[in-house]
Amino acid sequence: MGQAAQAPSGTRDFLADDLRRRKAAVAAVSEIFERYGFDPLETPAFERLEVVTGKYGEEAANLLFKILRRGAHEAGGQADLALRYDHTVPLARVIGTHGSKLPFPFKRYAIGPVWRADRPQEGRFREFVQCDVDTVGSHSPLADAEIVQAVADGLEALGVIDFRFLVNSREALRGLLEVYNVDTFLSDGVLASLDKLDKLGAEAVVTELTERGISATTAERLVTDIVADSPDLIRAKLETNPRGKQGLADVDRLLELTGDLEGRIAFSPRMVRGLDYYTGAIWEVEAAGYPGAVAAGGRYDRLVAALGGPEVPAVGGSVGIERILAVQEPESGGDHGLDVALTVLEDSGGELLRLARELRRHGLRVGTYLGSSTKLGKQLTWANAHKARVAVIRGTEEQSAGAVTVRDMTSGEQQRVADADAAQRIEELLRD
Amino acid sequence: MGQAAQAPSGTRDFLADDLRRRKAAVAAVSEIFERYGFDPLETPAFERLEVVTGKYGEEAANLLFKILRRGAHEAGGQADLALRYDHTVPLARVIGTHGSKLPFPFKRYAIGPVWRADRPQEGRFREFVQCDVDTVGSHSPLADAEIVQAVADGLEALGVIDFRFLVNSREALRGLLEVYNVDTFLSDGVLASLDKLDKLGAEAVVTELTERGISATTAERLVTDIVADSPDLIRAKLETNPRGKQGLADVDRLLELTGDLEGRIAFSPRMVRGLDYYTGAIWEVEAAGYPGAVAAGGRYDRLVAALGGPEVPAVGGSVGIERILAVQEPESGGDHGLDVALTVLEDSGGELLRLARELRRHGLRVGTYLGSSTKLGKQLTWANAHKARVAVIRGTEEQSAGAVTVRDMTSGEQQRVADADAAQRIEELLRD
Repeated sequence: MGQAAQAPSGTRDFLADDLRRRKAAVAAVSEIFERYGFDPLETPAFERLEVVTGKYGEEAANLLFKILRRGAHEAGGQADLALRYDHTVPLARVIGTHGSKLPFPFKRYAIGPVWRADRPQEGRFREFVQCDVDTVGSHSPLADAEIVQAVADGLEALGVIDFRFLVNSREALRGLLEVYNVDTFLSDGVLASLDKLDKLGAEAVVTELTERGISATTAERLVTDIVADSPDLIRAKLETNPRGKQGLADVDRLLELTGDLEGRIAFSPRMVRGLDYYTGAIWEVEAAGYPGAVAAGGRYDRLVAALGGPEVPAVGGSVGIERILAVQEPESGGDHGLDVALTVLEDSGGELLRLARELRRHGLRVGTYLGSSTKLGKQLTWANAHKARVAVIRGTEEQSAGAVTVRDMTSGEQQRVADADAAQRIEELLRD
Repeated sequence: MGQAAQAPSGTRDFLADDLRRRKAAVAAVSEIFERYGFDPLETPAFERLEVVTGKYGEEAANLLFKILRRGAHEAGGQADLALRYDHTVPLARVIGTHGSKLPFPFKRYAIGPVWRADRPQEGRFREFVQCDVDTVGSHSPLADAEIVQAVADGLEALGVIDFRFLVNSREALRGLLEVYNVDTFLSDGVLASLDKLDKLGAEAVVTELTERGISATTAERLVTDIVADSPDLIRAKLETNPRGKQGLADVDRLLELTGDLEGRIAFSPRMVRGLDYYTGAIWEVEAAGYPGAVAAGGRYDRLVAALGGPEVPAVGGSVGIERILAVQEPESGGDHGLDVALTVLEDSGGELLRLARELRRHGLRVGTYLGSSTKLGKQLTWANAHKARVAVIRGTEEQSAGAVTVRDMTSGEQQRVADADAAQRIEELLRD
């Protein structure tokens, strides 16, 4: 049927096993966020184009899926809506829309698809789930700590146990640049370059820094010190600078408040994030067996206003649920068979459907044979294919006796039971 | 902040209480469908434009949200994708895409948003949830009966108890038209007109029928007989016509197989559905207190092929979950408070966060005060606003004693407990 029969490029159809696994992951993380007192929020799949315009920078703007105006306006070829690119711009918009109706601080989580017209490639999709948790309206360091703990528990709920939070702070990084006499107006660019250390390597970053106007000596010393990732070395330098000192205090307060993460959280001078909207402590989580970061977050006190919302402090985190699910994929197999398979022979089916409904009312998963074969063997093959634990047979003999034959699909043992007792006997069998 | 601060026209932000209610409804219906052996399916939010083009008729085509091509193609103003308009076209496409990988018969449910650019009005949205359950690949009347039972149980799970299935069949209706000597080529149009009886009334429908080329006498007799809604009268007429007889047999088989719905399912000659893709038994569910139909469905053996899938029989139903939620809205209040509220006084917070994490690990919902007040009274007001059942206080005295004060927010009773015993004592208190 050609390309038209496929899901659009970069998107996926989720069939039963995969979808159940994804739903279970979302439910597990949601449950954790609920325990932390976060409330769910769901915004529309699209926003007005003017809400998103200018909010994401030029590169991202090209990745928006824009929706054509409708009816008579369609011919104009203009868009007025765009699919959700993340959960953050909608969050800022919601705070503007519902302000006084929201509890403040507003603690919300959002787990749902976002859409980006990235070039599709291995493991990268145009429709994928983002999992965000944010507290808007609190300056308290407890809010930062709560996000870190919620993300840590969320990762554990997803089966990611062997992880480590790398903590740094934008103020500490800016203070460090001051220690190296980097001009303030260069610091955003310098941090963006340092953020690429993992990707490009030290040498390339030094070159990039000199191109940005940093002297070769300074660039080399800076990169060497960052790459060394020595907390003591950097701490000593930061203590000499007011900004650095403040940033370090933010980091240390977060470490103190999340003390029960023990060895799984530490100050990491090497952890630089290029996104310039962070204002306080920032962190990233690395986990054994997973490429890149499995979660990231930090404080961004100016972002909500920058995105069109009111002036409110905010702190948040994001769990890389797609990345985690992708790594776990090969391990988890779907195992969602039927509890009971009803074969359909001479019986008209009415009595079987009544039995089925009774079993279902008791919470069992019951399938009825809907194919065209009247052969028991074929129907038992069907029952097996659906991993049925018990099969029910009602042939001519059973019918005239007002009974069914109940077959244990594992052992092959069979027993005849009167219609009235069938449901109870089957449940007993499944309990064993 | 003007219009830009609002969600797009016809869409909604779902805040916590409402969203939890919606999620609970979806979970309840999903659980029922699972018990019937249906598997979940989730398709992308959008399909290739050519997959949907020509599938919905002219009126619906104007309601599609079309997505502009991206990058260099954007300027052309052309669309290449469209948001999902329903779950049926994606189902037909999935059968084409994944054919051999799917278990057959393919029993799936899909509960998720669809998008239609209808004129927004009271109770009608441009983004709304559709809840579909379908069996593709079975001719068995058991498949029809299973859908009816699953929908009945689904309605009950949604709290809709007082309902009634009105059953008819496309073949019976066509046979009836033959009895009245209506030309075959007119029958689709005539059924579309009869479908409007509730909306337009008998007189207007008679006029419409005569405009379609039916004689006034025939139109009046036909409408009178349909409006009478007398199963016996219509049965007698259908028995005289082979097509009518076959249709009646389909209806009777469904009634027999779903006998356990007792008084809640019946042949209803007045139930005419205008959608010409139905081929066998069709039904609609009316429920006391709900406007219009709360569910509908039937057999549509030619639809999958017509939508671009292979030639396979199919039967399905749809539960009007938005309609049901809209009616129930005023009744259900949100009641999702905190189990435990932690106030934050002189204590640095580290010990409190450790206690919080322990309580959360035991499944409790725990909030930490994140505001700026250091006054206990204000913090207890916050705890009350969040419906906290227990508040925890750790002031200077408690801190030096290595203890917390646990306050029952209902009775106002307080007791001091050592840090080590706090979690256990709080859990006991919440169990009472």
